[in-house]
Amino acid sequence: MAELEVSRPILEANDRLAQANRQRFKQAGVKVINIISSPGAGKTTLLEQTLTRLKDRLRVAVVEGDVQTTEDAQRVAAVGVKAVQIETRGACHLDGGMIARVLGAFDLQDLDLLIVENVGNLVCPVEFDLGEDLKVAVLSVTEGDDKPSKYPVLFREAGVLLVNKIDLLPYIDCDIERIHATCRQLNPQQVAFDLSCRTGQGVDAWADWLEAWVKA
Amino acid sequence: MAELEVSRPILEANDRLAQANRQRFKQAGVKVINIISSPGAGKTTLLEQTLTRLKDRLRVAVVEGDVQTTEDAQRVAAVGVKAVQIETRGACHLDGGMIARVLGAFDLQDLDLLIVENVGNLVCPVEFDLGEDLKVAVLSVTEGDDKPSKYPVLFREAGVLLVNKIDLLPYIDCDIERIHATCRQLNPQQVAFDLSCRTGQGVDAWADWLEAWVKA
Repeated sequence: MAELEVSRPILEANDRLAQANRQRFKQAGVKVINIISSPGAGKTTLLEQTLTRLKDRLRVAVVEGDVQTTEDAQRVAAVGVKAVQIETRGACHLDGGMIARVLGAFDLQDLDLLIVENVGNLVCPVEFDLGEDLKVAVLSVTEGDDKPSKYPVLFREAGVLLVNKIDLLPYIDCDIERIHATCRQLNPQQVAFDLSCRTGQGVDAWADWLEAWVKA
Repeated sequence: MAELEVSRPILEANDRLAQANRQRFKQAGVKVINIISSPGAGKTTLLEQTLTRLKDRLRVAVVEGDVQTTEDAQRVAAVGVKAVQIETRGACHLDGGMIARVLGAFDLQDLDLLIVENVGNLVCPVEFDLGEDLKVAVLSVTEGDDKPSKYPVLFREAGVLLVNKIDLLPYIDCDIERIHATCRQLNPQQVAFDLSCRTGQGVDAWADWLEAWVKA
C-alpha cells in the first residue's frame, strides 16, 4: 500500500545540502535545534517562553517555517530575538536547501544557538535533515496518548520530547504515562520534560537543560 | 522559497484515479466524505460518536488512513461498522490510487455513505483528491484560533468545518469567533458546527446534517 512521495534522489540531494549546513554550523560554533510537532501543539508559544528565559543567557536566533503567513516570526521578534521567516508556499516541511538560503541573514559566528521551528506536521519534517544537531518533538496532551505509536519515526528520532499543555490534563482523557512509556521504548536515550507554556510550569527545567546542552 | 515536493505529473495522475473513483461512487449511489485534520484533533472519536448515531439510519462504512498501526480501524469496528485500514507506511496523506485499491473490500451498491479518515496532516491531504463528494475539516480549539489563516487551503476547500473539543474552551486562550470569521472569509458557503466529541455536545446537529446531506 506504500506509495512514498519522497523519492530517494530527493532525499539524497537534501542530505548533501543538510551536511553542508552542518559543516557551516560546526565551523561557526553554533548549535542548531529543529522543533517538530503537529499544528497547534504550541511550538511558537514554547519559543516565546524559552526565548524570554534564554535571550540574556545565550546569543540566539530563530528560523520560522510556515506554509503561509509571517505571524510566528512577528511573535518571536516581539520577544526581542531575531527571526527569519520561510514561507514554504504549500510545502509541508522545511528542507536543507531552504535553510541554506536563509543563513546569509545571520552572522553565525555571533550565535550560540539557532532554533528552527518546522512546519506543523508529524510526518515529512522528520524525513528532511536540515543539518541540525538535535530534533525536539513537541506533543500536546490534547492530541492524545496514542500519537507516539502512530507517528513513531519522529518520536524515535527526537533527542528531546516536550509534552506540552499539561495544565489541561484534568479536563481530558490522556494517559501521560502511556506517552512516556511508548517514547522510552522508541528511544531510551531521549530526554523528556512535561510542561505548560501557558502557565509556565516546567519551562524553567527545559530552558536550563537547553542552556547547559548548548554550552556543553 | 517554494519547493513543492508534489509535482504536477503526480497530481495529474492522482486526479485521473480520483475521477475514476468518483465515477464508481456515483454509479453505485454512495456518497463519500474525506475527513482531514491535524493529528489529535479528534477524528477517530468523532467517527465513533457519529457512527453510533448513524449506523442504524444509514448504510455506512469507513476507510481509515494511518501512517502506522491499525488502532483506528479497530476503534471503528468496535462500534459495529465495517472499517478497512490503509497503512501508508510513511506517506503523509491518502491518494486516489490507495482508495481505488481498497474499494474491492466493499459492496458499494449496499452503502449510502463511505467515510474516509485521512492521515493527520493539514497540508498534503488537501492536494490529493480521492474522488470524494465533500471534504470535512476538523479543528480542535486547542490547536489555536490562528490555524485557518496559517493553513488556508484546507479551510477554503472544506465544505464542512467541525470545531471540536469546545468543552476545553474555558481552560485555554482560543477565540472561537476568530476561527469562524476566518473560515467565513475563506469559504462563505461552508457549513460549520461547534462540538465536543468527549461530552457529545453538538454531535447530534452534525450527525443530523450529515444524514440529511446523504439523503438529499
